[in-house]
Amino acid sequence: MSLLVVGSLALDTIETPFGKAERTLGGSATFISVAASYFVQPVRLVGVVGGDFPKKELEYFEEREIDLEGLQIIEEGKTFHWHGKYDYDLNSRESLVTELNVFADFDPVVPESFKKSRYLCLGNINPELQKKVFQQMENPKLIVADTMNFWISGKKDALIDVLKHINVFIINDSEARELSEEANLFKAAKKIQSFGPKIVIIKKGEHGALLFYENELFSAPAYPLESIYDPTGAGDSFAGGFIGYIAKTDDISFENMKRAVIFGSTIASFCVEKFSLEGTRDLSHIQIKDRFNEFTRFSAFEPSEL
Amino acid sequence: MSLLVVGSLALDTIETPFGKAERTLGGSATFISVAASYFVQPVRLVGVVGGDFPKKELEYFEEREIDLEGLQIIEEGKTFHWHGKYDYDLNSRESLVTELNVFADFDPVVPESFKKSRYLCLGNINPELQKKVFQQMENPKLIVADTMNFWISGKKDALIDVLKHINVFIINDSEARELSEEANLFKAAKKIQSFGPKIVIIKKGEHGALLFYENELFSAPAYPLESIYDPTGAGDSFAGGFIGYIAKTDDISFENMKRAVIFGSTIASFCVEKFSLEGTRDLSHIQIKDRFNEFTRFSAFEPSEL
Repeated sequence: MSLLVVGSLALDTIETPFGKAERTLGGSATFISVAASYFVQPVRLVGVVGGDFPKKELEYFEEREIDLEGLQIIEEGKTFHWHGKYDYDLNSRESLVTELNVFADFDPVVPESFKKSRYLCLGNINPELQKKVFQQMENPKLIVADTMNFWISGKKDALIDVLKHINVFIINDSEARELSEEANLFKAAKKIQSFGPKIVIIKKGEHGALLFYENELFSAPAYPLESIYDPTGAGDSFAGGFIGYIAKTDDISFENMKRAVIFGSTIASFCVEKFSLEGTRDLSHIQIKDRFNEFTRFSAFEPSEL
Repeated sequence: MSLLVVGSLALDTIETPFGKAERTLGGSATFISVAASYFVQPVRLVGVVGGDFPKKELEYFEEREIDLEGLQIIEEGKTFHWHGKYDYDLNSRESLVTELNVFADFDPVVPESFKKSRYLCLGNINPELQKKVFQQMENPKLIVADTMNFWISGKKDALIDVLKHINVFIINDSEARELSEEANLFKAAKKIQSFGPKIVIIKKGEHGALLFYENELFSAPAYPLESIYDPTGAGDSFAGGFIGYIAKTDDISFENMKRAVIFGSTIASFCVEKFSLEGTRDLSHIQIKDRFNEFTRFSAFEPSEL
């Protein structure tokens, strides 16, 4: 089923205690659309890049059947550039450089042929832009949105407005606490549901993820990674794997969404094993399936009589 | 199958932001043996109390078929007393008063009739005393031990010595990091396994628990509690539910130990819903079974073709 992804495309410079990658492909829309492309093809993309965006990466998108009709290429401009540095614990990061470049004036335009897309994934961008996108759509079946702490503190009203119109909100644990002003994650999720989305997914990094589906709860385990090389894009890869599987199956039931959370966790686990997009840019269906099955082993147990 | 529990018996005064309980029944052996008694009876107890220990609590133990033959009652002494105060987040606590009393000279003696117990649970006490206990035993099938940060910092060598002789070690996440000097929990568990126990359980509070069984992993979800009234005894209740179920089923396979972790989590979830022992002192089998089944709902998902 048709899937439209909107978000940022970037050239990132990333430093971690384990190494450095310069001007490498990044941005929320990149990680989401690549992750989703393992489940559904084509993936429709709306975003903006400058004339410096590498031709070979555009070709890579096309190889993965990511439809670039909605990609604005501003030849005279430069692509959004972020330079970040992670500490040893990989939880805290410092933004050394943020050059918005062509992203500063980004006015997302959904091509006519994309407007009837059944599924819409709003990657982490300014919530005012997220709203501009879904206002152009013609009755999507499901809208998923992601965000980050920057918008919770800087554009809270716009974010709350977006929440009224979406179905699934994906957020990490500290952001959920910040947005809801509740320390307890189960209370935080209920409060966020009261803002609009009936489905809230809280990502907890090494502790897995929680899916709140109306009044139901699903707790997904984390993949037991002993080393994480680069957390950049993990949340976006989760969102992409999640919505990709939903779009492929065209099934928004609780049971199916549980599996989608596991597929999201699967792609995110590959993401953090290598730098930047390296962990997810060339996966096989067998790798994905094997890891999905490992998640089953980690969490399954048989019933018992007492 | 026969189960022996060793640990402390205490009269606790507990303050949380939600209330205060004075000189209420506490101690690791109390919480463990009560939790285990829902699965296996009798539960054999080795411990010490003073003459001030309430008669009605001794009667309560007997009602729950907790065998007090190994309980030393020092009539002229006073029972171990702990007075603790929890902060709002209930994660940090302050010990206001710790009076060891009769516990200061506790020399655990395993009665002759207890020495062939098939299962042994060493509650959180000085690791030198834990060793004294298992040295008196005659070939137990499985030894489970718990500890706390106080012994990791104060009696690390004695604790490492105990680890060489036990089968299952139960520890919380921050203690696992402290003992192993590894920030990553999966690495921490492997390192602790290298100290001796082939099975390590890491309790993660609101994030559930991880069971490391040789090279296998099981990730148990947390029960979605929106309010926690008093965390005192949660870890002991987990240990008691865990070993109680193992002793009942006499099955130490990975598959059965997964269920034991869920039963441990079940009893711990009841524990924190009320003050002190109030949450677990009078449970029904139906309550326990219903909550076990809820854990199944939170974590089960069906396989998928990609």
